[in-house]
Amino acid sequence: MLLKNKKGILFGALDADSIAWKVAQKCHQEGASIVLTNTEVAQRLGKIDDLAAELNVPFFPCDVSNLEDIELLIDKSQEHFGGQIDFILHAVGMSYNIRKQKPYTNINYDFMQKTLDISAISLHKILQTCYQKNALSDAGSVVTLSYIAAQRILPNYNDMTEAKALLESIVRHFGYYYGKNNKVRINAISQSPTMTTAGKNIQGFQELYEQAEKISPLGNATAEDCANLCSLLFSDYTTKLTMQTIYLDGGFSMCL
Amino acid sequence: MLLKNKKGILFGALDADSIAWKVAQKCHQEGASIVLTNTEVAQRLGKIDDLAAELNVPFFPCDVSNLEDIELLIDKSQEHFGGQIDFILHAVGMSYNIRKQKPYTNINYDFMQKTLDISAISLHKILQTCYQKNALSDAGSVVTLSYIAAQRILPNYNDMTEAKALLESIVRHFGYYYGKNNKVRINAISQSPTMTTAGKNIQGFQELYEQAEKISPLGNATAEDCANLCSLLFSDYTTKLTMQTIYLDGGFSMCL
Amino acid sequence: MLLKNKKGILFGALDADSIAWKVAQKCHQEGASIVLTNTEVAQRLGKIDDLAAELNVPFFPCDVSNLEDIELLIDKSQEHFGGQIDFILHAVGMSYNIRKQKPYTNINYDFMQKTLDISAISLHKILQTCYQKNALSDAGSVVTLSYIAAQRILPNYNDMTEAKALLESIVRHFGYYYGKNNKVRINAISQSPTMTTAGKNIQGFQELYEQAEKISPLGNATAEDCANLCSLLFSDYTTKLTMQTIYLDGGFSMCL
Amino acid sequence: MLLKNKKGILFGALDADSIAWKVAQKCHQEGASIVLTNTEVAQRLGKIDDLAAELNVPFFPCDVSNLEDIELLIDKSQEHFGGQIDFILHAVGMSYNIRKQKPYTNINYDFMQKTLDISAISLHKILQTCYQKNALSDAGSVVTLSYIAAQRILPNYNDMTEAKALLESIVRHFGYYYGKNNKVRINAISQSPTMTTAGKNIQGFQELYEQAEKISPLGNATAEDCANLCSLLFSDYTTKLTMQTIYLDGGFSMCL
Repeated sequence: MLLKNKKGILFGALDADSIAWKVAQKCHQEGASIVLTNTEVAQRLGKIDDLAAELNVPFFPCDVSNLEDIELLIDKSQEHFGGQIDFILHAVGMSYNIRKQKPYTNINYDFMQKTLDISAISLHKILQTCYQKNALSDAGSVVTLSYIAAQRILPNYNDMTEAKALLESIVRHFGYYYGKNNKVRINAISQSPTMTTAGKNIQGFQELYEQAEKISPLGNATAEDCANLCSLLFSDYTTKLTMQTIYLDGGFSMCL
Repeated sequence: MLLKNKKGILFGALDADSIAWKVAQKCHQEGASIVLTNTEVAQRLGKIDDLAAELNVPFFPCDVSNLEDIELLIDKSQEHFGGQIDFILHAVGMSYNIRKQKPYTNINYDFMQKTLDISAISLHKILQTCYQKNALSDAGSVVTLSYIAAQRILPNYNDMTEAKALLESIVRHFGYYYGKNNKVRINAISQSPTMTTAGKNIQGFQELYEQAEKISPLGNATAEDCANLCSLLFSDYTTKLTMQTIYLDGGFSMCL
Repeated sequence: MLLKNKKGILFGALDADSIAWKVAQKCHQEGASIVLTNTEVAQRLGKIDDLAAELNVPFFPCDVSNLEDIELLIDKSQEHFGGQIDFILHAVGMSYNIRKQKPYTNINYDFMQKTLDISAISLHKILQTCYQKNALSDAGSVVTLSYIAAQRILPNYNDMTEAKALLESIVRHFGYYYGKNNKVRINAISQSPTMTTAGKNIQGFQELYEQAEKISPLGNATAEDCANLCSLLFSDYTTKLTMQTIYLDGGFSMCL
Repeated sequence: MLLKNKKGILFGALDADSIAWKVAQKCHQEGASIVLTNTEVAQRLGKIDDLAAELNVPFFPCDVSNLEDIELLIDKSQEHFGGQIDFILHAVGMSYNIRKQKPYTNINYDFMQKTLDISAISLHKILQTCYQKNALSDAGSVVTLSYIAAQRILPNYNDMTEAKALLESIVRHFGYYYGKNNKVRINAISQSPTMTTAGKNIQGFQELYEQAEKISPLGNATAEDCANLCSLLFSDYTTKLTMQTIYLDGGFSMCL
């Protein structure tokens, strides 16, 4: 019961393959109260209502590109919890350049702006909203999901590469201020390629997954592995760990 | 005469304190033909016409947030040179959040979008335009200016922090494709704090400059030092060096 | 009870200020069976017998520069546990160049060899011994303690700087083989300066400690914080995390 | 003539495939006066006398594991040059564990000590000797050759992995003191796998070379590319660049 009495918001669960889905189940199992959120489109297309029912927790819709949506979510969550929020999972990413198969050397810049806004700046928006509302408790912990493309280049990941670099910068930067002012810690998990619905849409993903599985001394980290690490980072065992990107990848990042 | 017969475009010279100004003088001295560019506002407010006169080179205006401007610039430059371009210096950055003194924990997101667009995505736009037009020669070299805030956080640098992280990602990512396809190399120089007109506008810059001067075993690298390194990176001495961020900082980055 | 049924060897406890001391208490509290070890000299000078009594666990002496000592320790520990070992803490470091106040620019090379042997190669010796004896279980986890001097230079840390760089390389390198062959993971914790007996002997340590305390957004991580993280890394929550250096430093490593 | 009036010592040329051989030719061509050195065994087995004759420069034997040899070399070189030394290339490496095909999980520790001594600590010995004798000029520059195994693990590179990690630490650490006190800069070039006599002896080298050639967007950097970069780092164009590892690898290090 690592998360007994902890209250958290989890962004990004879509279906049972989602990392956020596993995080929700794990946090629930570790004793946390949670709120689920995603866009209304994702709610319709995915299975998140099933998860909300399974765990008996509320789903509040939120489009992370919309500041007012985020404000409303934070307000409703605090109301639901009867107080401050202890942890947040940000597992959000989307690229129209990938969806529309625009090559990186011929991208659409409106799409790129949306990629960065939804996949990275959304974390800043959530944090700024919480910071302004003093919505996170002093033992608060925020985790986002990144990928090694932030450091090293692979084909086909397109402008999500830049989104992850931007995201990790926001982790460090907002972690600095939120740490100094409220002892809130912010970290990224740089996770192995994971067989999620989003992941599978990236061209060449299957090959990438298998290559990483082969190179990583321990094999790829799964969504369950990621959920385990999230629960540790949300817990009181890691109150001095902040502004880091932690590679949960079976050792892949340290291999040639 | 390291740059004999080389032709290059230099973005970002404003006045004699600008790094791009020193790079222009150095490249000229090393035998290169150059084109100067900046916005029309910068042309009016700064002294770049003096530099163009001094070196007897053209100034073509270009707003890097505007794709058509970039296309026109590349076309006119190729016309001027009578062929492909060999090197580009991207020394461009601007943050309204800094100018308007919005704290990082309460930034304006329209401003942030502009910061990222002008200070980082502009490099992608220039590269994509060149790539689509096949405007860079096979020995081509592109250099942009970064800062260690891309890796480590300091107060007051605001969303330029994220812009530099994004910029270095574009260096790696476009460097990958442009290298594979045309042998063009792309690198960033992560430079000591430098007493430019832009730098001096950052709150606490003087203190930052002095602290870096004290910590760096060799003292801060100057604009002239940066111009020297640019000329090497544009030359044929470094044709296999790409996708890197090179710290030109008197050793600062490696000190505690 | 994160470590229920786990068995581990802890190197390096000297007195109640030692990180290894806190790790021992924490692991015991989380349900692990443990063996304590250190040199006989440390046993005499320190208080480790008190800790062994407090936790009711055996102390087996071992000089890590001596391969036979390590072999004997591993044999006796397996005998004591009645089977394989699940985790190891390596918290060992010593520099005669520091003790004898030899400046880094005028070090004694025999001392340096000892520094590297005791503070870094000892980890390889322990791992190789376990590997050859198949002494670590498949869920095995090894943690060593490092310091950011492995990446960035500060005065007075002398050849411990090189020892930590070497140590982190062994973490990655042996982590590769031990991961591939036995699913054993190996990680380093790069810890804030900590008020241990060893730490306090470094010239300028007090100043260093206070500076880090001030710069780190969350303040310095304590020995207890480190013990918490060790217990997580020894647990089944982190079975895919390996070959990493994790910065437990209140954010220090990501600040300028 | 980048190195006009500069005087340098080059360690490690064996035959025409050696990187140091190409560096010698390049430095000579750029106007430098040089001294060649290597062990007497290497002198007998290799072709360095031919190079000394070709360039009309002296060869002074030196075993870098022997401090007295180094002292003698520095004295004789200063005598030969009639003053201080401006640059040094350290291109030295050797592993008996590789030669005797000891696997990394079953290495011989006496061999490992020799590997570290010859391949890494030798740089410290050379620097300390120069530092104590004030043998390097204030514009001095020292370059050593490293490999990405210092950061990421590959099979078969054995304890040279640790040697390179140690070497890069010495670059940073001695660079700190020598920079602060004498403005001397010290850098490492992390070079693509290169078809030298030493390289070819590593098991699986051919495959490694070809894989790197394929992955690197610009292909592998050659010994000539490395010589070019060395000449830049020895020159007055880079007087503020220090304590860095520069990846000269066609972009390999930044690719997944």
